[in-house]
Amino acid sequence: MRVGPSQEEIRRQNLGALLRYVHVHGATSRAELTSALGLNRSTIGALTAELAAARLVSERAPRETGRAGRPSLVVRPESARVFAYAYSIETDRLRAARIGLGGVVLDRRQAARPPGLPPEECLPVLAGLRKEMHRSVAEGSVYVGSGVAVSGRPRHPDGPGRRRAEGAVPRQPDRDDRTGGGPEPPLEKALGEVLSPDRPILVSNVADASAVAEHVRGAAAGYDTVIYLHRDGGVEAGIIVRGQRLTGCGGYAGEVGHMVVQPGGRPCRCGSYGCWETVIGEHALLQAAGRGDAAGRDAALRVVDAAARGDASAQAAVRQVGDWLGFGVANLVNIFNPDMVIFGGTLREVYLAAAARVRSRLNSMALPTAREQVRLRTPQLGEDAALIGAAELAFEHLLADPLDR
Amino acid sequence: MRVGPSQEEIRRQNLGALLRYVHVHGATSRAELTSALGLNRSTIGALTAELAAARLVSERAPRETGRAGRPSLVVRPESARVFAYAYSIETDRLRAARIGLGGVVLDRRQAARPPGLPPEECLPVLAGLRKEMHRSVAEGSVYVGSGVAVSGRPRHPDGPGRRRAEGAVPRQPDRDDRTGGGPEPPLEKALGEVLSPDRPILVSNVADASAVAEHVRGAAAGYDTVIYLHRDGGVEAGIIVRGQRLTGCGGYAGEVGHMVVQPGGRPCRCGSYGCWETVIGEHALLQAAGRGDAAGRDAALRVVDAAARGDASAQAAVRQVGDWLGFGVANLVNIFNPDMVIFGGTLREVYLAAAARVRSRLNSMALPTAREQVRLRTPQLGEDAALIGAAELAFEHLLADPLDR
Repeated sequence: MRVGPSQEEIRRQNLGALLRYVHVHGATSRAELTSALGLNRSTIGALTAELAAARLVSERAPRETGRAGRPSLVVRPESARVFAYAYSIETDRLRAARIGLGGVVLDRRQAARPPGLPPEECLPVLAGLRKEMHRSVAEGSVYVGSGVAVSGRPRHPDGPGRRRAEGAVPRQPDRDDRTGGGPEPPLEKALGEVLSPDRPILVSNVADASAVAEHVRGAAAGYDTVIYLHRDGGVEAGIIVRGQRLTGCGGYAGEVGHMVVQPGGRPCRCGSYGCWETVIGEHALLQAAGRGDAAGRDAALRVVDAAARGDASAQAAVRQVGDWLGFGVANLVNIFNPDMVIFGGTLREVYLAAAARVRSRLNSMALPTAREQVRLRTPQLGEDAALIGAAELAFEHLLADPLDR
Repeated sequence: MRVGPSQEEIRRQNLGALLRYVHVHGATSRAELTSALGLNRSTIGALTAELAAARLVSERAPRETGRAGRPSLVVRPESARVFAYAYSIETDRLRAARIGLGGVVLDRRQAARPPGLPPEECLPVLAGLRKEMHRSVAEGSVYVGSGVAVSGRPRHPDGPGRRRAEGAVPRQPDRDDRTGGGPEPPLEKALGEVLSPDRPILVSNVADASAVAEHVRGAAAGYDTVIYLHRDGGVEAGIIVRGQRLTGCGGYAGEVGHMVVQPGGRPCRCGSYGCWETVIGEHALLQAAGRGDAAGRDAALRVVDAAARGDASAQAAVRQVGDWLGFGVANLVNIFNPDMVIFGGTLREVYLAAAARVRSRLNSMALPTAREQVRLRTPQLGEDAALIGAAELAFEHLLADPLDR
């Protein structure tokens, strides 16, 4: 609570709000910005001029509108020029992308991750992917920072990842933000040194990053309570509550894969028994299909393919996993009353193959209003969700204070 | 996003912030207010003078400090003068209290609720309790509004209950707040007409109101992620995430009692099978103790008493319910990574009698960091939590804009 922000603070907040608006919504006319941001025309003009001078946005006349009068100029983010690098460290693959302001994927690369290779040892591979992408970066481009989404990684409620991803324009950006909050965790440090020595690097969890991306510019845009389920080996969730990520007190929220759904059920890798993961994880699907000696993303997707081609044991496996998928979703729907549940990672294919089983479980187990209100969806951004979400983290610093460089 | 608040808006925000501070923290010296609110001494002096002139706070010299220099005046809320009425409509009882600014219970009353009596038909009883309390209200007192906590009632994310209870000072209080948001639900309307025709009345859920109270001034003060479990017949939760209530998209979040923990288990009143409520609800406890024909709060508490006195079947029942209590709490701990779980309603006694069973389940089922971080507690405000929480809703309007009357 201050006596009130200074004119300079208000100007910076407004610059951030305008840039954020076109980052999220894409090309927007000045007239629409005037109304969306509650600022007058001359202020919008001045702010746009400043952002254009910094080459963060460009302005041009719209196509012929057919209406009389001078048309309102259209402001768009400089997506080809201002970019972040995004990485995802998944169970059996490593991905990297160059993502422009506005969430545009400009380039992307992928490599296999040898089974069990620790995240730290994936760094040379990621650095190689970055180097490849860097060759095609045009002169005059601006690199703002990097984001990394890691499978199974805690969510750091007090780390920079969270602070930068909240979406709200801070009333008073904290200059010491980057260095505050205790010692940097080892993975962040190593990632920063190798991949982004000169700009911030933000590390998040794949489920969280995907949830953020779908919430900002995907299937869940405009919804406040969203559960993004992600399966990549195990099962976890990125959960959005009131438009912000649920992190819990220590960054460990979202471990829905370890909700016990079958007391005394199969042993789980966590040490407990009958966790949701033991009945809907990739291993459970493979085992139910009689392929318990296979493993990994591709093997799991082959079961769903086989089911689609009429393989009876694969079909039975998909039905069984679909039932359990609906079971756990019903519990989450009763707990959160979400607007939307998104089936991501390799749960996408299972959901698409067994949507009727999932819905049927929901109908028998979830309370009527909550089950009527929830929308079941697959990621609108597809597999890009994790990378686009990681890039959102990297853009956050720029959006909070666009001319601070 | 505005060009910036006006001086008048800033003044009103600051008045609200100061009043909220002493409402939450009690008597506070001017020096402490200066530092807590980030305002200078003369501003604090002027704001305090305005609030004192409106008789919302009073100032007096502190007791002898032993330090040199003029002691800082102490500002306190006018708890005896400025008050709300709070009501709770529970399964088998009706309660009412008069609660002063600062959360002080000034008076309280209670009556039985005949089994199954609809909330609307409880109104004459509540009106009677109010009338009794009203007799002892001193002349010059100020009634600010009423709050009602109803067992098993949805949480209205878009209703006034939520808007008023978020705790944040709105940057621009909406003058049409009271009349916006669609038609008023019937219970709110009836309650308002009978109990508070001249001032706002806010309706919430008992679990939610209790969670708010414990979060503002009870066991969970200072914690961001809190689960308040409430058992009053059935089981539900008031959940605080990032310091705000989890309502879900339609006001139905927190129905943790219908999380299925035992596939194919006992039929639940919701139509599903094996819900958490079927194994930890009051009926489950009574049934496990061989008292399945009894019902209600007192009967449930007698089982816990009997267990404490050595009754073997009561002890077995408490152990069994304690096991299942820990089971569901472990699931919630994995999902939310909460700072704290509070055992309220008649779960308080079960938890106290079976804390070791609960903790043991948590240790075997919850992920290590999350279980180490969670604090298990009973309500610091005891049974007053629901009433104090209901009063918080009623004070919210005053705290948002103290001189708007």
